Amino acid sequence: MTATPYDIFNKEYHCATKFVLVDENTRKYGLPHLLQMCPTLQNARIIEICAGEQHKNLETFAQIIEQLSENNADRKSVLINLGGGMICDIGGFAAACYKRGIDFVNIPTTLLAMVDAAHGGKTGVDFQNFKNQIGVFALAKHVIVDVEFLKTLPKIEILSGFAEIVKMALITDINFWDVIKDTDLENSQTLQPLITEAIEKKMQIANEDPTEQNIRKILNFGHTFGHAFETFALENGEELSHGHAVTMGMLCELWLSEKILNFDSNQRNIISEFILSKYPKFPIQTADFERLFNILLQDKKNNRREIKPILLEKIGQPQYDLNCSQELCLEAFQAYTTFKKI
Amino acid sequence: MTATPYDIFNKEYHCATKFVLVDENTRKYGLPHLLQMCPTLQNARIIEICAGEQHKNLETFAQIIEQLSENNADRKSVLINLGGGMICDIGGFAAACYKRGIDFVNIPTTLLAMVDAAHGGKTGVDFQNFKNQIGVFALAKHVIVDVEFLKTLPKIEILSGFAEIVKMALITDINFWDVIKDTDLENSQTLQPLITEAIEKKMQIANEDPTEQNIRKILNFGHTFGHAFETFALENGEELSHGHAVTMGMLCELWLSEKILNFDSNQRNIISEFILSKYPKFPIQTADFERLFNILLQDKKNNRREIKPILLEKIGQPQYDLNCSQELCLEAFQAYTTFKKI
Repeated sequence: MTATPYDIFNKEYHCATKFVLVDENTRKYGLPHLLQMCPTLQNARIIEICAGEQHKNLETFAQIIEQLSENNADRKSVLINLGGGMICDIGGFAAACYKRGIDFVNIPTTLLAMVDAAHGGKTGVDFQNFKNQIGVFALAKHVIVDVEFLKTLPKIEILSGFAEIVKMALITDINFWDVIKDTDLENSQTLQPLITEAIEKKMQIANEDPTEQNIRKILNFGHTFGHAFETFALENGEELSHGHAVTMGMLCELWLSEKILNFDSNQRNIISEFILSKYPKFPIQTADFERLFNILLQDKKNNRREIKPILLEKIGQPQYDLNCSQELCLEAFQAYTTFKKI
Repeated sequence: MTATPYDIFNKEYHCATKFVLVDENTRKYGLPHLLQMCPTLQNARIIEICAGEQHKNLETFAQIIEQLSENNADRKSVLINLGGGMICDIGGFAAACYKRGIDFVNIPTTLLAMVDAAHGGKTGVDFQNFKNQIGVFALAKHVIVDVEFLKTLPKIEILSGFAEIVKMALITDINFWDVIKDTDLENSQTLQPLITEAIEKKMQIANEDPTEQNIRKILNFGHTFGHAFETFALENGEELSHGHAVTMGMLCELWLSEKILNFDSNQRNIISEFILSKYPKFPIQTADFERLFNILLQDKKNNRREIKPILLEKIGQPQYDLNCSQELCLEAFQAYTTFKKI
């Protein structure tokens, strides 16, 4: 038989008690493929939690710990997180805290988790509307990326993940950006090399600065404003995927990059048009700017009430720790409302 | 003015938002001394939680996170844990998880916390009767040991902490043991050098093996059986301090050491007599042994249902990873019931 990444469960974790964390979706759409690829997991305990960011909280975390406790998980046990970013984040956090830390393996089933949440050691849960307010840095022992899982993924989820690939290209490499501009999102096999490249670039940065003291901050490009849009949508009960919010954040932060760092205006138009051709405009009004700005102020990356989005001098040349005034932030929200697909 | 350890709050944390975690006791008995020693903390936010191990849980953890959130603690903020082991454990865990980690400083106010919980990076909360079932390894940035706090500490609390000093001597150094045998527990100043030595020895071991893969396990001497007694007492609503339980655990584990490793029988009698002269016998019955053994099995340090207490060949020569059969464990409980103060 050919070696597969799933072999770790027969080798490294042969004697370990195995737990698979799923939600109702990944139990239905992901688990059968996992068990087919790795029959040894037939004996694993399944821990099922409710799908959705609204369940990424301390209560669900406690449910996972309870299941581990009741089934006598010990320090040699392993938790296998099968799902999207929510499963990887909360499962990683639970594994990192259970008896002060057991191994966990991420098997991301969404494009977003494949290129982002499954790697790099950021784990956590939300708390009172603040995203990832509680968590720790803890690395998965392994991440198994299997594009087979993407075949059952809705288009909107593919788009959400693609936004992180776009981000990765913009902060690191103009050649990468040139490649992704022409990608066919309908074909999961053509996505494979982009996923691999995005992960490599992310891990290079994350390894250099695991706890986000400096260079890792650039991974937050699009996320300072993006998180504000995401929280805002959540507060108003409106649908907005993480990736979609990040594209909105990138549009705002590119606009700021042009203002503050003279980012090339033509280049910005090309990027904006590309983004708006794939992601619909999310409606915000002038009356919303104050609330959006207040959410920005609460962001855990903004110390002492300073807003510091990642800005680009050029594609592949990000800068961090630049301050943006309240006026400019409000103007950036204003600018977003005027962007048009040409 | 003379330099004091409290100067860090004027220097390193001059610009940081400061939070002081207290319970109702340390607010009353500890905070006034802290504010006197460090007037700059007058401006710190006070977070008060309920005293007692029964509140060392996820709910109280969430209360601390909530207070930090509501008061806009950012990643540069510092949490100052003023209290005993419970405050250091839960405060350290909250700081380690808040926005994936902010600095914390432990200011232990009990002898036990001074020599144990405040150092070495073990943080956490209890979960469904399991002690420290949820937690992480995270080091306090500073630990300030100030014996002044011991002056208001009840005798029973001094005894509880002294048990850890006895443990440290027994696992590391026969000369240290000879010194502590003659200590006057009524005088907090004479305790100072013992505290310093116990901390140094602990940190040496903890630094060598921060995540308890091997040598650090020896710090659990007396704790495998001790935790069982502690949990048992908790379940039955009986008063039993951590240190008192650890002395009981040491008596059982020394008995096992004699059986398995030929620990010197006279030496064991001397230690037993010393312990029983300071700590009263806690009543257990034959009918309790099964429950006690089941608690042993649940201990997070026992992988795959093996009981592995730390045993001593001699004073200062501990061994870990030795298996104890169910029979021997039950006999050790039996032996405890027969120990007498001579």
